[in-house]
Amino acid sequence: MTPSPFVVRKVVRFAHCDPAGIIYYPQYFMLAHDAKEDWFRDGLDYPFKQMIGIDRRGFPIVKVEAEFQRPSKMGDDLDVAISVRAIGAASLKLDYRFTCGPEPRMWIRTVLVMTNLDSGAAVPVPDWLRERMGRFQESAKDAP
Amino acid sequence: MTPSPFVVRKVVRFAHCDPAGIIYYPQYFMLAHDAKEDWFRDGLDYPFKQMIGIDRRGFPIVKVEAEFQRPSKMGDDLDVAISVRAIGAASLKLDYRFTCGPEPRMWIRTVLVMTNLDSGAAVPVPDWLRERMGRFQESAKDAP
Amino acid sequence: MTPSPFVVRKVVRFAHCDPAGIIYYPQYFMLAHDAKEDWFRDGLDYPFKQMIGIDRRGFPIVKVEAEFQRPSKMGDDLDVAISVRAIGAASLKLDYRFTCGPEPRMWIRTVLVMTNLDSGAAVPVPDWLRERMGRFQESAKDAP
Amino acid sequence: MTPSPFVVRKVVRFAHCDPAGIIYYPQYFMLAHDAKEDWFRDGLDYPFKQMIGIDRRGFPIVKVEAEFQRPSKMGDDLDVAISVRAIGAASLKLDYRFTCGPEPRMWIRTVLVMTNLDSGAAVPVPDWLRERMGRFQESAKDAP
Repeated sequence: MTPSPFVVRKVVRFAHCDPAGIIYYPQYFMLAHDAKEDWFRDGLDYPFKQMIGIDRRGFPIVKVEAEFQRPSKMGDDLDVAISVRAIGAASLKLDYRFTCGPEPRMWIRTVLVMTNLDSGAAVPVPDWLRERMGRFQESAKDAP
Repeated sequence: MTPSPFVVRKVVRFAHCDPAGIIYYPQYFMLAHDAKEDWFRDGLDYPFKQMIGIDRRGFPIVKVEAEFQRPSKMGDDLDVAISVRAIGAASLKLDYRFTCGPEPRMWIRTVLVMTNLDSGAAVPVPDWLRERMGRFQESAKDAP
Repeated sequence: MTPSPFVVRKVVRFAHCDPAGIIYYPQYFMLAHDAKEDWFRDGLDYPFKQMIGIDRRGFPIVKVEAEFQRPSKMGDDLDVAISVRAIGAASLKLDYRFTCGPEPRMWIRTVLVMTNLDSGAAVPVPDWLRERMGRFQESAKDAP
Repeated sequence: MTPSPFVVRKVVRFAHCDPAGIIYYPQYFMLAHDAKEDWFRDGLDYPFKQMIGIDRRGFPIVKVEAEFQRPSKMGDDLDVAISVRAIGAASLKLDYRFTCGPEPRMWIRTVLVMTNLDSGAAVPVPDWLRERMGRFQESAKDAP
């Protein structure tokens, strides 16, 4: 199976937009977080309900980098593509690209660390999860 | 006058925190935006009400980079220090550092472009605003 | 055609939940607003993009009443049913019921007034919109 | 000591406002929640950090009623006055009034129930907390 990104559509809501009439930029990070939540549930079959609520594991963010290419407006349908850049022992490099039709809107690169939510300590990504995540690994040419 | 950052205190609200008990990371960008709004009003004497509502100018974000150093919890008092890294013809490099007492929590580096909100075109930063912003310019040693 | 509510599914997101592990209650009003936005686009064929962005009409809220029946948790699938209680000259009484499977979670009753967004004045609901809204009018027995 | 409301000032932020240029109404409930959090910390000397984080008690909402009197705009300074309408065995009736200078903007009436956050069961309001809350009890004539 060729790896390919996980894509989910998000609508730019009235509530996401500001008095300047465009998306308020922190909302992109909220949409990215929602998309990641969808990816865990639908792409990895490991919903947050299970991971965070029961297994008490999480992926807090360590680094983020983003570039805003074109503004998004109320009612725009955005496709959020999530792809895995790299998986380390406990870390995960996850990228997002937001497009509206053919038009790129913004991208985000993140570094996350798998963590025991009770102790706060980094924990290794289990093999079964690493294997599932690998299905969404981008090839070098796709990197933003 | 020696340049120094603009500092404003923000409380980590119940509403900012997630089921993992710590701040939901996009909230840092919301707090940074609120702090920037305070800076325009109290530090630059150019409130958003005037700039966006009347003059129809804004500073949409072009790039952002952030590092999360330690998690913040409900009730923490965070000091947000804003400093100017550079001012170009139409662009502004603005940095934020979040600390809780002596403890660094995260930092953000942003690139913004001054824009005519009606046309979307970049516009030069006026001299009087550039002069006011310069009072908050960081020295090289302060850069995160 | 028998009138029936407009129903849309919303997920209780990680970001909607608080350190007490349940949905932070203002999020219900945000979800209701998103559902109303879906209703305008998919149920009434009059998207906000057109109504607010182009026609400069809106439905600001005048009154709201809500009862919270059972808490909602991260990952819950909520069905939001929107029904019209009454349509006046310029006003609209709109009700929402949130359920998770068979379990009622909360309801909201609202009164809205159609408004010219530039002048702020109330404007009559046009006949074509009143007719479309009428398809979602609840019968007396359904009222919360 | 004559009972009087607890008053705290909140700014209508850029981020609170929508493409219609006014506050997005669920933000009022967020501001009310922030004001309640301030009241617990500064008015009752019982911060959420202690109540929720350590004692595992909370005041989830059961009912809410609100009326929106005049729209609020970006940059407005709102005074939020919190007063206690009644304290039952486990319940609390709490009212909020939002004003901008002399102008009323909206009010909220809420019913809350004190709860053990681990079991979800209602618990009696302890006498010491009831006594402190009583200092903010409104007289009949003040009720919205």
